[in-house]
Amino acid sequence: MSSVTALRGVQVPTLPQPYLLFLGDTTEPGYAKTAFGLRDWAGERCVGEWSCGATVTTGLPFLAPREAHARGARGLVIGVANVGGAIQENWIASLVEAIEAGLDLVSGMHVRLADVPQLKAAAARRGARLIDVRTPPPNIPIASGRKRSGMRLLTVGTDCALGKKYTALALARAFAGRGVDVDFRATGQTGILIAGRGMPMDAVVSDFEAGAAEMLSPAADARHWDVVEGQGSLFHPAYAGVSLGLLHGSQPDVFVVCHEPRRTHVLGSPTFALPSIEETIDLTIRLGRRTNPAIRCAGISLNTAGLDDTAAREVLAEHAARLGLPAADPMRGGAEFARLVDACLA
Amino acid sequence: MSSVTALRGVQVPTLPQPYLLFLGDTTEPGYAKTAFGLRDWAGERCVGEWSCGATVTTGLPFLAPREAHARGARGLVIGVANVGGAIQENWIASLVEAIEAGLDLVSGMHVRLADVPQLKAAAARRGARLIDVRTPPPNIPIASGRKRSGMRLLTVGTDCALGKKYTALALARAFAGRGVDVDFRATGQTGILIAGRGMPMDAVVSDFEAGAAEMLSPAADARHWDVVEGQGSLFHPAYAGVSLGLLHGSQPDVFVVCHEPRRTHVLGSPTFALPSIEETIDLTIRLGRRTNPAIRCAGISLNTAGLDDTAAREVLAEHAARLGLPAADPMRGGAEFARLVDACLA
Repeated sequence: MSSVTALRGVQVPTLPQPYLLFLGDTTEPGYAKTAFGLRDWAGERCVGEWSCGATVTTGLPFLAPREAHARGARGLVIGVANVGGAIQENWIASLVEAIEAGLDLVSGMHVRLADVPQLKAAAARRGARLIDVRTPPPNIPIASGRKRSGMRLLTVGTDCALGKKYTALALARAFAGRGVDVDFRATGQTGILIAGRGMPMDAVVSDFEAGAAEMLSPAADARHWDVVEGQGSLFHPAYAGVSLGLLHGSQPDVFVVCHEPRRTHVLGSPTFALPSIEETIDLTIRLGRRTNPAIRCAGISLNTAGLDDTAAREVLAEHAARLGLPAADPMRGGAEFARLVDACLA
Repeated sequence: MSSVTALRGVQVPTLPQPYLLFLGDTTEPGYAKTAFGLRDWAGERCVGEWSCGATVTTGLPFLAPREAHARGARGLVIGVANVGGAIQENWIASLVEAIEAGLDLVSGMHVRLADVPQLKAAAARRGARLIDVRTPPPNIPIASGRKRSGMRLLTVGTDCALGKKYTALALARAFAGRGVDVDFRATGQTGILIAGRGMPMDAVVSDFEAGAAEMLSPAADARHWDVVEGQGSLFHPAYAGVSLGLLHGSQPDVFVVCHEPRRTHVLGSPTFALPSIEETIDLTIRLGRRTNPAIRCAGISLNTAGLDDTAAREVLAEHAARLGLPAADPMRGGAEFARLVDACLA
């Protein structure tokens, strides 16, 4: 990948790869989602992992920064997130060591790397880059609403954190496997780390939200597909505005609804019942047709983690029959997933 | 007004009043909207106007900053906006003169006052405040979606720039006239200048949009009303996300639809037909009931500027009959407006 990528005139820097994944002192696998995502979806660009006392592991070789640099690493990615998204005091010496070894730092945390004085000083001393993938690029335009050439798919959800990113990654990989010219378009920090570029939609100022989505998936060849990672949910009491701006700006031709069959309420908001898949399809079409009258639902992506194979297949079959649409778990693949891919490209 | 106002724990500075209104070198009345709004809705807190060659006037006394300060002015408000929202080079000497006279500067422009080196230097020299009302306060929370006590009204629109602010101001004034305990809650720069406080919703980072609306209208006495100024439109290809975050976070009990009868297309987006009032009511209820199941439409506010009195009354009667709801132009008042106020408070 070149050092900069042009997104409709605005230069978005690409990230320094390959990566060394930093796990901090994390003992909770749930907090290492970012590292696992990178291992699963950008494994060929990860030379190893490193930590300062973590018990969690990605299974990649444990390498000190100097060794990782010798093996080709160019960026150390903070692959963990604690509640609040702060950089822990006891990580700082390790992060300075990585800078001293010649690595750039890459973070998806809320706190900016340059706001940590020791990191700022070390980076200035060594000429290293401190890259916060949550910081949007400058000069995002107000959305025009004009239809762009090329095909677009958006993953939408009945809630947050149930598979919109994984579904988009799996669909993009499957499209490529069928010879389709496709780009995965990342909208959150882990996705951006995987793709090496993207737009942190939740960090964009509200007035520019739809414009940021337009910038993320620029006009393209008529047969080109952008598979856009969804964010939030149109039914989420805090994040619906993010989802609507992304829907309007992405102007998808096709969307896939992501759902976790056993979830009954909005994550972290137990007084809000989850919408049904039917309501989600209906509202997404109603709102999405404002910028793309041809919008359609291609099928359902169910997160069946925690179910055994038989139970998962039953749940998928039940949903497909009820909704009259393909239903698949991209992490399981199989004939169900092939049918979902068929329906997207139909 | 005290020097700070507590908004659920976060301190929002109130603005230095009374104001001197600055008109720059403006010759187009359309660009002096902010000054006219302040004259109309905060006239008792405006001691005069000043300019550097403007032909536009608010009709207030023309006062140099030193004289205005002697008459009580504490802030000079930039009451004009050019395309792009930049501070013009030929205004700067006048703005420095205002600082030297002991006034703080208050701006709703896109460019920040402190980014103009001469203003920054003059303010530092004199200890003046440079206040950008487009800059949101720090520490806005993620929305909780929890129902708050007190009553809330939101003005919504079929488009931008057709009377949502004026309607909210007129309703708040009418509520107060009936002895109702009411606050006008400003969400845009002119409204914030009028109210002396508020939340610049379009400048809030998307993830915090609904949370900002929750912060703007905190829990209150059961009989207290917040009349919240609407922003954008749920049908606007660029700003719908702003409108949805504001709707979810405001959790209005009542909304009033603002419309301009002769407008057929979205302002500045001629390929987008304006939604009907019926569609707007339906979508606002469908989305708004997510955070307030009791949401209802109290009536319609029509912007009949440009129509003579007879034509305006006909248009209002036609809409009221068709929709079965009160329809009024708050700028004309009359029995129609009294019926709209009745319906809001019913």
